[in-house]
Amino acid sequence: MSRMVILTEKDLRKLVPLDREAVACVEDAFHALATKPVAMPPILRLDIPEHRGEVDVKTAYVPGIEGFAIKISPGFFDNPKIGLPSTNGMMVLLSSRTGLVQALLLDNGYLTDVRTAAAGAVAAKHLSRPDSTVAAIFGAGMQACLQLEALTLVRPIREARIWARDAAKAEAVAADLTTRLGFPVRAEADPEAAVAGADIIVTTTPSEKPILKADWLRPGQHVTAMGSDAEHKNEIDPAAIAKVDVYVADSLKQTRRLGELHHAIEAGLVSPDAEFPQLGEVVAGLRRGRESVGQITLADLTGTGIQDTAIATLAFARADAAGAGTAFES
Amino acid sequence: MSRMVILTEKDLRKLVPLDREAVACVEDAFHALATKPVAMPPILRLDIPEHRGEVDVKTAYVPGIEGFAIKISPGFFDNPKIGLPSTNGMMVLLSSRTGLVQALLLDNGYLTDVRTAAAGAVAAKHLSRPDSTVAAIFGAGMQACLQLEALTLVRPIREARIWARDAAKAEAVAADLTTRLGFPVRAEADPEAAVAGADIIVTTTPSEKPILKADWLRPGQHVTAMGSDAEHKNEIDPAAIAKVDVYVADSLKQTRRLGELHHAIEAGLVSPDAEFPQLGEVVAGLRRGRESVGQITLADLTGTGIQDTAIATLAFARADAAGAGTAFES
Repeated sequence: MSRMVILTEKDLRKLVPLDREAVACVEDAFHALATKPVAMPPILRLDIPEHRGEVDVKTAYVPGIEGFAIKISPGFFDNPKIGLPSTNGMMVLLSSRTGLVQALLLDNGYLTDVRTAAAGAVAAKHLSRPDSTVAAIFGAGMQACLQLEALTLVRPIREARIWARDAAKAEAVAADLTTRLGFPVRAEADPEAAVAGADIIVTTTPSEKPILKADWLRPGQHVTAMGSDAEHKNEIDPAAIAKVDVYVADSLKQTRRLGELHHAIEAGLVSPDAEFPQLGEVVAGLRRGRESVGQITLADLTGTGIQDTAIATLAFARADAAGAGTAFES
Repeated sequence: MSRMVILTEKDLRKLVPLDREAVACVEDAFHALATKPVAMPPILRLDIPEHRGEVDVKTAYVPGIEGFAIKISPGFFDNPKIGLPSTNGMMVLLSSRTGLVQALLLDNGYLTDVRTAAAGAVAAKHLSRPDSTVAAIFGAGMQACLQLEALTLVRPIREARIWARDAAKAEAVAADLTTRLGFPVRAEADPEAAVAGADIIVTTTPSEKPILKADWLRPGQHVTAMGSDAEHKNEIDPAAIAKVDVYVADSLKQTRRLGELHHAIEAGLVSPDAEFPQLGEVVAGLRRGRESVGQITLADLTGTGIQDTAIATLAFARADAAGAGTAFES
């Protein structure tokens, strides 16, 4: 008989809020990525064009973490027509020692939201000025809110601006965040004005053409671009990649292919084999991030399997401690 | 709320025995592979050398089948030291229309056993002589038994010989199969003698050097090699690949890399880009299999994701009809 735990989205929302421990577990995973023989195979991708569907399967083994997650992320873009969300998904957590299934995390993408926001916090912690107080967020979706919340865990944020294509949505989100976070968050109709005077700028949109111009960036600012996870997505002016003092990739292999870097390479502004620090190397102190208050830093985040393994392992540990979930023997 | 069904190995053993319908569903999947825009991405593979572990993730979408399986197959080869099986695994069945999880099949590899044996039956049905009555099986494991059983579903088998490296195991398996199948199955210590006079030969071992010699093959025989699913595995004398009249791959892309064909190519006996029929093409009547009673035919089976999707869909349909399994709402 083997025993596994099944955790639903409801369980997981209770067990794994976006908090400092979530950020720390993702930070540790990036540290491991730079210092240990992490195994992170290329993403398995299945396309079902006749139903406008796609599925990505990601995994990563991090030595020292007892389990590894296999994450199944479907996106079916006709679902809203029949009242279903486009994206859902789940993770299977297996033991790194035996391969036995330890947990099924039926999170509908919730854990991905948390681990993505946590990576934003890790980037800001290691690249932004410690005295950063003003944030500008591009986008008004779930990640826009979570990224701002994540920043508050690592920096003394006391003011934020939200710019989004849909101004009404930006207004609504700003009002909501003001209440929830306890500092003024205002919607800003002009993206340049949103950026002016911000210490940290986070882009969280699915844009396919640049929405953040190189000219707008000023000394001392930090940018995290986390919207680009596919070849056709592009939030940052390719000239900005060439302009910033410090460019950091979550995974250089991925950002060369999928990230903002990819567009700068395509535009001929950066050499395809140019070497840049990776976030884990900065976390581990192997490469330098920001070296002075006047530098402009940029983190290009495409999402990695190590984050899934880290957050799934945290969820499992907390479920175990709390006796949460449904045990299933088979 | 979404609803899924969880089926355990025990449920699945009851619901999906190796029967004619299982063979037919795998046959249909091969037919689709040759005639429809099937999507079968490369296998995702994760290695965990420090625990002698590996995990393969396979999937395939077959147009016309309502679901698609994502199969997770771990192999952890130190497990027997702590009383656990080396291999286990599960499948997740998702809707082809919405990407929602329909079922979790906690089969510990059982469905893989059935779909692998079913492919052997499909190969024998389309390549062996219809009057084949004598089978020779190499190996004495689970697949040895299932492959013989599978042959009885498509050919009037009335005698079988088992050869295995472990002679005592071959004796025990032969005795057991004689009882279960109702015709004489005898252990044969000499592999050449096992092959002599056999109409169908099935190799089911994890051998890394050839155990079936080209010289032993006689006109009219059919060989199914199903043990080779990795680069280093090799059951069939490379000269036999060059010698047979009809070589058929389950997936030519895979057998060139993993199958018996791979070793014949490496030995310089077959050109790397030589074209051969694939099983689905033969099933669909697009390519010829056996053309006369005197030909020697050989099927090289490495295992495909379409088989997983086919058998998982059959399991789900039967569970639905029987009201089997545990419903889980989340």
